[in-house]
Amino acid sequence: MKKRIGVILSGCGYLDGSEIQEAVLTLLAIDRAGAEAVCLAPDIAQHHVVNHRTGKEEAGAARNVLDESARISRGEITDIKLLDTLHLDALVIPGGYGAAKNLSTYAFKGAECTVDSGVEQAIRSFHDALKPLGFICIAPAIAACVLGSRKPELTIGNDPATATDLETMGARHVECAVNNAHIWQKGKVVSTPAYMLGPSISEVSKGIDRLVQAVLELA
Amino acid sequence: MKKRIGVILSGCGYLDGSEIQEAVLTLLAIDRAGAEAVCLAPDIAQHHVVNHRTGKEEAGAARNVLDESARISRGEITDIKLLDTLHLDALVIPGGYGAAKNLSTYAFKGAECTVDSGVEQAIRSFHDALKPLGFICIAPAIAACVLGSRKPELTIGNDPATATDLETMGARHVECAVNNAHIWQKGKVVSTPAYMLGPSISEVSKGIDRLVQAVLELA
Repeated sequence: MKKRIGVILSGCGYLDGSEIQEAVLTLLAIDRAGAEAVCLAPDIAQHHVVNHRTGKEEAGAARNVLDESARISRGEITDIKLLDTLHLDALVIPGGYGAAKNLSTYAFKGAECTVDSGVEQAIRSFHDALKPLGFICIAPAIAACVLGSRKPELTIGNDPATATDLETMGARHVECAVNNAHIWQKGKVVSTPAYMLGPSISEVSKGIDRLVQAVLELA
Repeated sequence: MKKRIGVILSGCGYLDGSEIQEAVLTLLAIDRAGAEAVCLAPDIAQHHVVNHRTGKEEAGAARNVLDESARISRGEITDIKLLDTLHLDALVIPGGYGAAKNLSTYAFKGAECTVDSGVEQAIRSFHDALKPLGFICIAPAIAACVLGSRKPELTIGNDPATATDLETMGARHVECAVNNAHIWQKGKVVSTPAYMLGPSISEVSKGIDRLVQAVLELA
C-alpha cells in the first residue's frame, strides 16, 4: 500500500496563496518517493487578491482558496472538511503568504494569530494520532500556533522577529539551512525554511526533498 | 557566463493558462543545470477563466496572462515585447491549455490556428538565429503553426487527431515516451509529451529534465 500524504494548499501564488514552486516540489518529492499526494484546502474566501506582477492588492477582487488551490493540483482537490474520509498517513503544508493570510492570521496578528478551524483540527488530530506533520517556509507559524503548548522544534529561516514570534507561541526556533530539514522527533514534526531563505528553486527543492523523506520515514 | 533560457508562460493553471507543474519543473531543471531561467509572457487578456475545481468557465471573469504568469515565477516576469533586451540563449514553452487558448488559437481552430504575434516573432527570430527551442505537452502545436514550412519533428503524445493536426501544419509527428524528449537536430527544436501522456509528476519531470538538458547542449 502506498503511503498517502495530505498536502494542504492555501491558494495559488505566493503573495495571496500557496507558494507555487514549494507546492509543486512537494508533490514531486512525494510521487518520486513512491507515495501518493492528496491535495486539500479549506473552502473559504482568500483574504485578498494580489497582482503578482506589481505586488499590489487588486481592490474588489475575490478568489476562493479551494478553487485556486485546484490549479496547482490539476483539479484533484478535496475540501479539508472531508479529511477524515481520506485515510491519510501524514500532512504537509507548503508556504506562501496564503499560509499566513488564509490558513491563519499570522500575517496580521503575529504571535496573537489564530488558525482556520479546519486546518487546526487537522493538525491536532494528526498530532494526537502520532502521524507526522511537515511545515514548509512560513507554515511553521501555523504549527507554533496550534502546537505551541507542546514546545515543538521548528524552522522559520533567519528573520529574528519571526523566530521570536514562534518562541512567543511556545515553539523552540531551530536554525536550518535551506537545503536541509529539521526533525522534531518526539512530536514527529518536520520543517524546512524553503523560500524564507531562498535563494533558488534547486536549493529549496533539496530541503523539501529532505522534509518529505523524513515525513515518510516517520509515517 | 550562465546560459539564459527564456520560459514563455501563458497564465497560471492548466485549463486556462500554463500547466503549473510543467512550468515549475522547467524552472527547476534549468536552475539545477546551472543556467538561468527568465520568465516571459504576453501582456494580453486570457481567453477565459476556468474554475479548476469544477472545470467550468467562470462567466464574466477576466485575468491577464502576464499578471497570472507572474504567480509561477514569484513576480519575476518580463513582457515578451521586451524579448530583444534580454539576451537569451534559448526559449522553452511549457504546456497547459494557455498555450492553445492564449498563446495561440489551436484549441479553437486546430490546424487553422494562429499564434500570438509576440510569441510568433520570438520563435521565428530564435529559429532564424539557430538558437534552440523547447516545446512541452501541447506547446508543439505552436511550433507546428509557426515553423511548419520547415518540417519540424515534434512530439504531441498519442492522440491521433492532434498528431494529424501537427502534420497538416507541416510538422512530422514523432512518438516519444513521457520520460524522454525528442530532438529535431537540424532545427534545434526539442519537444516532450509531458501531461499529454501523464501519468504522474515524476514521469513528466524526467521528460522535462531531458528536454532542458538537450536545449542547453544545443545552446
